[in-house]
Amino acid sequence: MDFQEITIESEKIFSGKILNLRVDTVKLPNGNTSKREVVEHLGAVGVIPITEDRKVIMVRQFRKPVEEICLEIPAGKLNAGEDPYLCGVRELEEETGYKASKMQSLGSFYTTPGFSNEILHLYMATGLSKGEVKLDEDEFVEMQTIPLEQLFEMVMKGEIKDAKSIIAILKAYQLLK
Amino acid sequence: MDFQEITIESEKIFSGKILNLRVDTVKLPNGNTSKREVVEHLGAVGVIPITEDRKVIMVRQFRKPVEEICLEIPAGKLNAGEDPYLCGVRELEEETGYKASKMQSLGSFYTTPGFSNEILHLYMATGLSKGEVKLDEDEFVEMQTIPLEQLFEMVMKGEIKDAKSIIAILKAYQLLK
Repeated sequence: MDFQEITIESEKIFSGKILNLRVDTVKLPNGNTSKREVVEHLGAVGVIPITEDRKVIMVRQFRKPVEEICLEIPAGKLNAGEDPYLCGVRELEEETGYKASKMQSLGSFYTTPGFSNEILHLYMATGLSKGEVKLDEDEFVEMQTIPLEQLFEMVMKGEIKDAKSIIAILKAYQLLK
Repeated sequence: MDFQEITIESEKIFSGKILNLRVDTVKLPNGNTSKREVVEHLGAVGVIPITEDRKVIMVRQFRKPVEEICLEIPAGKLNAGEDPYLCGVRELEEETGYKASKMQSLGSFYTTPGFSNEILHLYMATGLSKGEVKLDEDEFVEMQTIPLEQLFEMVMKGEIKDAKSIIAILKAYQLLK
Protein backbone atom coordinates (compact mmCIF):
# COMPACT_ATOMS: atom_id res chain seq x y z
CA MET A 1 0.00 0.00 0.00
CA ASP A 2 1.31 3.44 -0.94
CA PHE A 3 0.54 5.87 1.88
CA GLN A 4 2.23 8.94 0.43
CA GLU A 5 0.33 12.23 0.63
CA ILE A 6 1.27 14.57 -2.21
CA THR A 7 1.30 18.31 -1.47
CA ILE A 8 -0.95 20.19 -3.91
CA GLU A 9 -0.75 23.56 -2.21
CA SER A 10 1.10 24.96 0.80
CA GLU A 11 -0.04 28.09 2.63
CA LYS A 12 2.30 29.87 5.04
CA ILE A 13 0.30 31.04 8.08
CA PHE A 14 2.90 32.31 10.53
CA SER A 15 6.64 32.77 10.80
CA GLY A 16 7.89 33.07 14.39
CA LYS A 17 10.87 33.01 16.71
CA ILE A 18 10.80 29.30 17.47
CA LEU A 19 8.29 27.89 14.98
CA ASN A 20 6.49 28.45 11.67
CA LEU A 21 3.01 27.26 10.78
CA ARG A 22 1.78 26.18 7.35
CA VAL A 23 -1.33 24.42 6.06
CA ASP A 24 -0.81 21.92 3.25
CA THR A 25 -3.52 20.69 0.94
CA VAL A 26 -2.65 17.09 0.17
CA LYS A 27 -3.82 14.38 -2.21
CA LEU A 28 -4.65 11.27 -0.19
CA PRO A 29 -3.93 7.66 -1.27
CA ASN A 30 -7.63 7.31 -2.27
CA GLY A 31 -7.46 10.39 -4.54
CA ASN A 32 -9.40 12.71 -2.21
CA THR A 33 -7.86 15.87 -0.80
CA SER A 34 -7.39 16.92 2.82
CA LYS A 35 -5.68 19.66 4.85
CA ARG A 36 -2.61 19.07 7.02
CA GLU A 37 -1.60 21.64 9.64
CA VAL A 38 2.16 21.53 10.06
CA VAL A 39 4.30 23.23 12.74
CA GLU A 40 7.82 23.71 11.39
CA HIS A 41 10.58 23.56 14.02
CA LEU A 42 14.37 23.48 13.60
CA GLY A 43 14.72 20.59 16.06
CA ALA A 44 16.28 20.37 19.48
CA VAL A 45 18.82 18.54 21.58
CA GLY A 46 18.40 17.04 25.05
CA VAL A 47 21.30 15.91 27.25
CA ILE A 48 21.10 13.66 30.31
CA PRO A 49 24.19 14.50 32.38
CA ILE A 50 25.13 11.71 34.80
CA THR A 51 27.72 12.10 37.56
CA GLU A 52 30.16 9.36 38.63
CA ASP A 53 27.87 8.44 41.53
CA ARG A 54 24.85 7.92 39.18
CA LYS A 55 23.13 11.22 39.87
CA VAL A 56 21.45 13.20 37.11
CA ILE A 57 21.67 16.99 36.76
CA MET A 58 18.07 18.00 36.03
CA VAL A 59 16.62 21.49 35.52
CA ARG A 60 13.35 22.96 36.68
CA GLN A 61 11.82 25.56 34.40
CA PHE A 62 8.48 27.27 33.85
CA ARG A 63 6.84 26.20 30.58
CA LYS A 64 4.31 28.74 29.37
CA PRO A 65 2.33 26.38 27.06
CA VAL A 66 1.46 24.08 29.97
CA GLU A 67 1.57 26.82 32.68
CA GLU A 68 3.67 24.57 34.88
CA ILE A 69 7.18 24.21 36.25
CA CYS A 70 8.58 21.09 34.58
CA LEU A 71 11.45 18.92 35.78
CA GLU A 72 13.47 18.19 32.62
CA ILE A 73 16.87 17.19 31.34
CA PRO A 74 18.93 20.15 30.04
CA ALA A 75 17.92 20.90 26.45
CA GLY A 76 17.87 23.57 23.81
CA LYS A 77 16.81 24.39 20.29
CA LEU A 78 19.13 23.84 17.35
CA ASN A 79 20.27 26.90 15.47
CA ALA A 80 19.88 26.65 11.69
CA GLY A 81 22.51 24.26 10.35
CA GLU A 82 23.97 23.54 13.80
CA ASP A 83 25.43 20.11 14.52
CA PRO A 84 23.28 18.34 17.18
CA TYR A 85 26.35 17.05 19.07
CA LEU A 86 27.90 20.52 19.33
CA CYS A 87 24.52 21.98 20.28
CA GLY A 88 24.30 19.42 23.10
CA VAL A 89 27.77 20.35 24.37
CA ARG A 90 26.83 24.06 24.27
CA GLU A 91 23.40 23.70 25.91
CA LEU A 92 24.71 21.48 28.68
CA GLU A 93 27.29 24.06 29.68
CA GLU A 94 24.98 27.07 29.23
CA GLU A 95 22.16 25.61 31.35
CA THR A 96 24.08 23.71 34.02
CA GLY A 97 27.67 24.95 33.93
CA TYR A 98 28.94 21.40 33.36
CA LYS A 99 31.28 20.19 30.62
CA ALA A 100 31.27 16.53 29.64
CA SER A 101 34.31 14.49 28.60
CA LYS A 102 31.97 11.93 26.94
CA MET A 103 28.70 12.47 25.05
CA GLN A 104 27.05 9.26 23.84
CA SER A 105 24.09 9.36 21.43
CA LEU A 106 20.80 7.96 22.76
CA GLY A 107 19.17 8.30 19.33
CA SER A 108 16.75 10.80 17.81
CA PHE A 109 12.97 10.88 17.74
CA TYR A 110 9.99 12.91 16.54
CA THR A 111 8.16 14.58 19.44
CA THR A 112 4.80 14.91 17.63
CA PRO A 113 4.92 13.56 14.05
CA GLY A 114 1.15 14.14 13.74
CA PHE A 115 1.48 17.93 13.65
CA SER A 116 5.15 18.95 13.77
CA ASN A 117 8.46 18.07 12.12
CA GLU A 118 10.41 18.66 15.34
CA ILE A 119 13.19 16.10 15.78
CA LEU A 120 14.88 15.73 19.13
CA HIS A 121 18.43 14.39 19.43
CA LEU A 122 19.34 12.81 22.77
CA TYR A 123 22.77 12.40 24.36
CA MET A 124 24.06 10.96 27.61
CA ALA A 125 26.85 13.08 29.10
CA THR A 126 29.40 11.62 31.51
CA GLY A 127 32.82 12.63 32.82
CA LEU A 128 31.41 15.92 34.08
CA SER A 129 33.49 18.90 35.22
CA LYS A 130 32.45 22.39 36.31
CA GLY A 131 32.29 25.19 33.72
CA GLU A 132 30.21 28.36 33.72
CA VAL A 133 26.41 28.85 33.53
CA LYS A 134 25.32 31.20 30.70
CA LEU A 135 21.53 31.32 30.35
CA ASP A 136 19.65 33.01 27.51
CA GLU A 137 18.26 36.39 28.58
CA ASP A 138 14.67 35.05 28.67
CA GLU A 139 15.59 31.72 30.28
CA PHE A 140 15.19 30.99 34.00
CA VAL A 141 16.17 27.55 35.23
CA GLU A 142 17.05 25.97 38.55
CA MET A 143 19.26 22.88 38.83
CA GLN A 144 18.30 19.82 40.82
CA THR A 145 20.46 16.70 41.20
CA ILE A 146 18.54 13.42 41.53
CA PRO A 147 19.79 9.79 41.61
CA LEU A 148 19.12 7.90 38.34
CA GLU A 149 17.30 5.08 40.20
CA GLN A 150 14.96 7.61 41.83
CA LEU A 151 14.26 9.28 38.45
CA PHE A 152 13.50 5.86 36.95
CA GLU A 153 10.94 5.23 39.72
CA MET A 154 9.46 8.70 39.15
CA VAL A 155 9.09 7.94 35.42
CA MET A 156 7.37 4.61 36.11
CA LYS A 157 4.95 6.34 38.52
CA GLY A 158 4.15 9.01 35.89
CA GLU A 159 5.78 11.79 37.93
CA ILE A 160 8.04 13.03 35.11
CA LYS A 161 5.86 14.69 32.49
CA ASP A 162 8.28 15.79 29.77
CA ALA A 163 8.60 13.31 26.87
CA LYS A 164 12.31 13.81 26.08
CA SER A 165 13.23 13.47 29.77
CA ILE A 166 11.19 10.26 30.14
CA ILE A 167 12.92 8.72 27.11
CA ALA A 168 16.41 9.82 28.21
CA ILE A 169 15.91 8.46 31.76
CA LEU A 170 14.52 5.09 30.59
CA LYS A 171 17.29 4.62 27.99
CA ALA A 172 20.11 5.68 30.35
CA TYR A 173 18.71 3.39 33.07
CA GLN A 174 18.72 0.44 30.63
CA LEU A 175 22.26 1.20 29.42
CA LEU A 176 23.77 1.70 32.89
CA LYS A 177 22.10 -1.25 34.63
CA MET B 1 12.87 31.34 42.95
CA ASP B 2 9.55 32.24 41.36
CA PHE B 3 9.65 31.21 37.70
CA GLN B 4 6.09 32.17 36.78
CA GLU B 5 5.59 34.08 33.50
CA ILE B 6 2.53 36.34 33.63
CA THR B 7 0.56 36.82 30.41
CA ILE B 8 0.24 40.52 29.56
CA GLU B 9 -1.31 40.05 26.13
CA SER B 10 -2.43 37.07 24.06
CA GLU B 11 -2.81 37.23 20.28
CA LYS B 12 -4.73 34.52 18.42
CA ILE B 13 -2.91 33.74 15.15
CA PHE B 14 -4.70 30.70 13.75
CA SER B 15 -7.59 28.41 14.56
CA GLY B 16 -7.43 25.05 12.77
CA LYS B 17 -8.77 21.51 12.57
CA ILE B 18 -6.24 19.94 14.94
CA LEU B 19 -4.46 22.92 16.49
CA ASN B 20 -4.64 26.63 17.28
CA LEU B 21 -1.70 29.02 17.47
CA ARG B 22 -1.37 32.04 19.73
CA VAL B 23 1.47 34.36 20.71
CA ASP B 24 1.59 35.48 24.33
CA THR B 25 3.48 38.51 25.58
CA VAL B 26 4.73 37.56 29.05
CA LYS B 27 6.35 39.28 31.99
CA LEU B 28 9.49 37.35 32.94
CA PRO B 29 10.73 36.75 36.51
CA ASN B 30 13.27 39.59 36.05
CA GLY B 31 10.54 42.05 35.03
CA ASN B 32 11.41 42.10 31.31
CA THR B 33 8.90 41.02 28.68
CA SER B 34 9.21 38.29 26.04
CA LYS B 35 7.04 36.52 23.45
CA ARG B 36 5.91 32.89 23.76
CA GLU B 37 4.57 31.04 20.71
CA VAL B 38 2.03 28.46 21.90
CA VAL B 39 0.42 25.67 19.88
CA GLU B 40 -2.90 24.72 21.50
CA HIS B 41 -3.91 21.08 21.11
CA LEU B 42 -6.76 19.11 22.73
CA GLY B 43 -4.45 16.24 23.67
CA ALA B 44 -4.26 12.68 22.48
CA VAL B 45 -4.29 9.07 23.60
CA GLY B 46 -1.89 6.26 22.68
CA VAL B 47 -2.56 2.58 23.32
CA ILE B 48 -0.02 -0.25 23.26
CA PRO B 49 -2.04 -3.42 22.56
CA ILE B 50 -0.23 -6.58 23.66
CA THR B 51 -1.37 -10.10 22.74
CA GLU B 52 -1.15 -13.10 25.08
CA ASP B 53 2.06 -14.21 23.35
CA ARG B 54 3.73 -10.79 24.00
CA LYS B 55 3.27 -9.38 20.52
CA VAL B 56 2.37 -5.72 19.96
CA ILE B 57 -0.14 -4.53 17.37
CA MET B 58 1.61 -1.56 15.74
CA VAL B 59 0.43 0.66 12.89
CA ARG B 60 2.36 2.13 9.97
CA GLN B 61 1.13 5.47 8.75
CA PHE B 62 2.36 8.34 6.59
CA ARG B 63 3.04 11.48 8.64
CA LYS B 64 2.96 14.62 6.50
CA PRO B 65 4.98 16.87 8.87
CA VAL B 66 8.00 14.54 8.71
CA GLU B 67 7.25 13.19 5.16
CA GLU B 68 7.82 9.65 6.38
CA ILE B 69 5.95 6.43 7.12
CA CYS B 70 6.19 5.99 10.90
CA LEU B 71 5.81 2.78 12.89
CA GLU B 72 3.68 3.76 15.90
CA ILE B 73 1.34 2.45 18.55
CA PRO B 74 -2.36 3.06 17.74
CA ALA B 75 -3.33 6.58 18.80
CA GLY B 76 -5.78 9.35 18.22
CA LYS B 77 -6.72 12.87 19.19
CA LEU B 78 -9.11 13.57 22.05
CA ASN B 79 -12.41 15.18 21.15
CA ALA B 80 -13.31 18.21 23.31
CA GLY B 81 -14.27 16.98 26.78
CA GLU B 82 -13.70 13.31 25.91
CA ASP B 83 -12.48 10.94 28.63
CA PRO B 84 -8.96 9.69 27.75
CA TYR B 85 -9.76 6.11 28.75
CA LEU B 86 -12.85 5.96 26.51
CA CYS B 87 -10.92 7.64 23.70
CA GLY B 88 -8.27 4.91 24.01
CA VAL B 89 -10.90 2.16 23.81
CA ARG B 90 -12.44 3.84 20.74
CA GLU B 91 -9.17 4.54 18.89
CA LEU B 92 -7.84 1.03 19.50
CA GLU B 93 -10.89 -0.53 17.89
CA GLU B 94 -11.15 2.03 15.06
CA GLU B 95 -7.50 1.69 14.01
CA THR B 96 -6.83 -2.00 14.64
CA GLY B 97 -10.21 -3.70 15.01
CA TYR B 98 -9.23 -5.03 18.44
CA LYS B 99 -11.18 -4.67 21.68
CA ALA B 100 -9.35 -4.98 25.02
CA SER B 101 -10.70 -6.54 28.19
CA LYS B 102 -8.09 -4.63 30.23
CA MET B 103 -6.66 -1.11 29.72
CA GLN B 104 -3.99 -0.11 32.24
CA SER B 105 -2.74 3.50 32.47
CA LEU B 106 0.93 4.04 31.64
CA GLY B 107 0.72 7.69 32.71
CA SER B 108 0.47 10.97 30.82
CA PHE B 109 3.14 13.29 29.48
CA TYR B 110 3.70 16.53 27.56
CA THR B 111 5.04 15.88 24.05
CA THR B 112 6.66 19.32 23.63
CA PRO B 113 6.15 21.57 26.66
CA GLY B 114 8.43 24.19 25.08
CA PHE B 115 5.91 25.14 22.39
CA SER B 116 2.68 23.17 22.83
CA ASN B 117 0.23 22.21 25.58
CA GLU B 118 -0.43 18.79 24.03
CA ILE B 119 -0.78 16.10 26.69
CA LEU B 120 -0.61 12.45 25.72
CA HIS B 121 -2.31 9.76 27.81
CA LEU B 122 -0.87 6.25 27.47
CA TYR B 123 -2.56 2.91 28.10
CA MET B 124 -1.52 -0.73 27.84
CA ALA B 125 -4.29 -2.90 26.38
CA THR B 126 -4.43 -6.65 27.03
CA GLY B 127 -7.06 -9.39 26.75
CA LEU B 128 -7.55 -8.57 23.05
CA SER B 129 -10.43 -9.83 20.91
CA LYS B 130 -11.33 -9.07 17.30
CA GLY B 131 -13.78 -6.23 16.54
CA GLU B 132 -14.16 -4.11 13.42
CA VAL B 133 -11.74 -1.57 11.83
CA LYS B 134 -13.32 1.87 11.24
CA LEU B 135 -10.74 4.41 10.03
CA ASP B 136 -11.37 8.15 9.66
CA GLU B 137 -11.98 9.12 6.04
CA ASP B 138 -8.54 10.79 5.74
CA GLU B 139 -6.69 8.09 7.69
CA PHE B 140 -4.67 5.32 6.04
CA VAL B 141 -2.92 2.84 8.30
CA GLU B 142 -1.48 -0.64 7.97
CA MET B 143 -1.16 -3.02 10.93
CA GLN B 144 2.05 -4.82 11.82
CA THR B 145 2.45 -7.26 14.71
CA ILE B 146 5.90 -7.29 16.34
CA PRO B 147 7.17 -9.10 19.47
CA LEU B 148 7.63 -6.78 22.48
CA GLU B 149 11.26 -7.90 22.95
CA GLN B 150 12.04 -7.03 19.31
CA LEU B 151 10.40 -3.60 19.67
CA PHE B 152 12.45 -2.98 22.81
CA GLU B 153 15.65 -3.74 20.87
CA MET B 154 14.46 -1.45 18.04
CA VAL B 155 13.89 1.37 20.57
CA MET B 156 17.35 0.93 22.10
CA LYS B 157 18.93 1.02 18.61
CA GLY B 158 17.00 4.23 17.77
CA GLU B 159 14.89 2.52 15.10
CA ILE B 160 11.53 3.66 16.53
CA LYS B 161 11.22 7.38 15.95
CA ASP B 162 7.86 8.33 17.46
CA ALA B 163 8.07 9.64 21.06
CA LYS B 164 4.80 8.17 22.41
CA SER B 165 5.62 4.74 20.95
CA ILE B 166 9.13 4.77 22.47
CA ILE B 167 7.72 5.61 25.92
CA ALA B 168 4.93 3.02 25.69
CA ILE B 169 7.33 0.25 24.58
CA LEU B 170 9.93 1.01 27.28
CA LYS B 171 7.29 1.20 30.04
CA ALA B 172 5.43 -1.94 28.92
CA TYR B 173 8.75 -3.81 28.66
CA GLN B 174 9.62 -2.82 32.25
CA LEU B 175 6.20 -3.79 33.59
CA LEU B 176 6.00 -7.16 31.78
CA LYS B 177 9.58 -8.30 32.43
